[in-house]
Amino acid sequence: MPELARKVADSNGQQEGKGVTLSPPPSVTLSSSTCPIPQSRYDHILLGHGSGGRLTAELIQRVFVPGFGGDVLAALEDQATISLPSPLGGEGPGVRGFRLSFTTDSFVVRPLFFPGGDIGKLAVHGTVNDLAVGGAIPKYLSAAFILEEGLAIEGLKRIVGSMRSACDEAGVALVTGDTKVVDRGKGDQVFITTTGIGIVPDGRSLSIHNARPGDRILVSGTIGDHGIAIMSVREGIEFETVLESDTASLAGLTEAMLQACPNIRCMRDPTRGGVSSALNELAAASQVGVRLSESAFPIRPEVHAACEMLGLDPLYVANEGKLIAVVPPADAERVLDVMRRDSLGRNAAIIGEVVAKHPGLVLLRSLVGGERIVTLLAGEQLPRIC
Amino acid sequence: MPELARKVADSNGQQEGKGVTLSPPPSVTLSSSTCPIPQSRYDHILLGHGSGGRLTAELIQRVFVPGFGGDVLAALEDQATISLPSPLGGEGPGVRGFRLSFTTDSFVVRPLFFPGGDIGKLAVHGTVNDLAVGGAIPKYLSAAFILEEGLAIEGLKRIVGSMRSACDEAGVALVTGDTKVVDRGKGDQVFITTTGIGIVPDGRSLSIHNARPGDRILVSGTIGDHGIAIMSVREGIEFETVLESDTASLAGLTEAMLQACPNIRCMRDPTRGGVSSALNELAAASQVGVRLSESAFPIRPEVHAACEMLGLDPLYVANEGKLIAVVPPADAERVLDVMRRDSLGRNAAIIGEVVAKHPGLVLLRSLVGGERIVTLLAGEQLPRIC
Repeated sequence: MPELARKVADSNGQQEGKGVTLSPPPSVTLSSSTCPIPQSRYDHILLGHGSGGRLTAELIQRVFVPGFGGDVLAALEDQATISLPSPLGGEGPGVRGFRLSFTTDSFVVRPLFFPGGDIGKLAVHGTVNDLAVGGAIPKYLSAAFILEEGLAIEGLKRIVGSMRSACDEAGVALVTGDTKVVDRGKGDQVFITTTGIGIVPDGRSLSIHNARPGDRILVSGTIGDHGIAIMSVREGIEFETVLESDTASLAGLTEAMLQACPNIRCMRDPTRGGVSSALNELAAASQVGVRLSESAFPIRPEVHAACEMLGLDPLYVANEGKLIAVVPPADAERVLDVMRRDSLGRNAAIIGEVVAKHPGLVLLRSLVGGERIVTLLAGEQLPRIC
Repeated sequence: MPELARKVADSNGQQEGKGVTLSPPPSVTLSSSTCPIPQSRYDHILLGHGSGGRLTAELIQRVFVPGFGGDVLAALEDQATISLPSPLGGEGPGVRGFRLSFTTDSFVVRPLFFPGGDIGKLAVHGTVNDLAVGGAIPKYLSAAFILEEGLAIEGLKRIVGSMRSACDEAGVALVTGDTKVVDRGKGDQVFITTTGIGIVPDGRSLSIHNARPGDRILVSGTIGDHGIAIMSVREGIEFETVLESDTASLAGLTEAMLQACPNIRCMRDPTRGGVSSALNELAAASQVGVRLSESAFPIRPEVHAACEMLGLDPLYVANEGKLIAVVPPADAERVLDVMRRDSLGRNAAIIGEVVAKHPGLVLLRSLVGGERIVTLLAGEQLPRIC
């Protein structure tokens, strides 16, 4: 999920306690030494700047948006939409231009290989999904590799092989690339940056600015699988069954959903920063409130157990093959049906709704009945998750 | 210069001694311990795999092309050309599609700041130039940052500022991006991957497969400036005047050249691997020979002196604001005039020609009158030059 193009509004939109009485935000951060950090108290990059949470938003706000400016960048969607003029020129009837979707992501996940996938698969799916959730049909990909001296060629072959399979499955063509090598100790085996181009069909304009009170919030399946799969490898946690990353291309699912319901307001893939980040962005950008029901969330028992054990909140844990959709109320059940007919949406559920109250805030009604604010992740929960 | 999309043919096209009697290839490599290496003798990544020379070509041939396949990737230009269908559909008269150029490059240069530029400027120019030398008009850029924990925010701001200036000068818009953070010791301050989209005007199709015997080879200015500027900072070499990197956007120059002479065969920016790599690629792809005259090469006295001192061959040293153009003989003088009227082409010169003899080989007539083969760089001369 491109961080440069996201979430700037969050650090502003966060209006804790505005008009509602709420319990304090949950403590979900492992690297407690680095958070919470007032905006002006650091002058070096912290791990939390890559979290997809508040520090990432601050970095974008402090460095990238003022540095780069630009209307498209400032719109902060997960992908830029580029309008190309008609090749015929002019504005007459029957003369139409093109709309392309353009997105980029670097992948630095460790370990390189994990249950359910590897960095190569993730690098393809991540960029394909950023195009797909924007309503585009993914078409072309580039891949740039930064290799560390000493990387085993066999490992690289395996990664390339799984990128190829992922491209084939997603229906995209990898058409250009680059390779750089850095000296031993100046990288970490392999980093991959993929960039994607998709075509946006006429009439589609999904945006996180579009949510309206009454809209339903849908999730396509169980949350937290990717983050916990990675964490379990790193920490040596064993489950009775192997917990696999959910990494997958969502392009087929999004297309089915959009054909069934062209007026879906917006979709997001809740990767780094989890469901919490995706919905906080939405609440801030659309200036609406979001109410979630904890009991409605699909979650695997082993993910739930691992989160309890590790002190993680599944709302902050990364997903790599799930999407959140904001759908007008009249269409919600129909879209849910369509999702459930897709193998990637079998466990889809309506998890909440958009409200007019407390704009910019995401509230969760917990299993025990209380309500709490779901804030942006303050520090870094699981570094290098994607 | 995208390495994944280049130079595969070189390791095949290299036909040393085929039909000509020649002096042995020059010894130009500093890291002699890693080269020359027979193709099957390593199973880990070496620094030389990032050189832009023979090892890079082997890596692409062994890993990327078989892994990814694909006609566009296999064409091995520095940029992929994508044909989009007409938005109107159909094939009737007046119905035209779009041709886009798409290219990506990672930048890992060190130091981050050097005379004449920094990694940010380089990251914009490098990708803009790959589009420009393919005949495209650069339009949109993405930027993905991999930051090392501990990087000074001020340094990052400076880099972003210089990217912005470089974009403005080149007339491109940076529209999307991403930021990842890796833990201290797992990166090297900042790596930047830029990806560019350009529009290819109707009727243009430059390709390294197009060179024909008789064509003239032009260079837009002094060679080796970037590599020696970087090297001088790293090695603490001082010149009487500060030698600056030539990093610059070539988009204005290429457009002027193509408008004056639409049938330029191809252009290349001789970055990593230098003029030698660019011309070896051309010779292999077009199955022609190339004859160069050493006395015709524009070179700064201080670059010449530094190369002598360091044992470097300027033909292998990177440039970041220079291009090589292959031009039909009848147009060569006119194109040269156009180049010289541009501030980036003031020192342009005709440095050689394409010949039918010794296909796949680049020969250089030296200042003292001998002739030698200019081979692909065998190992790594200046690691992390871009």
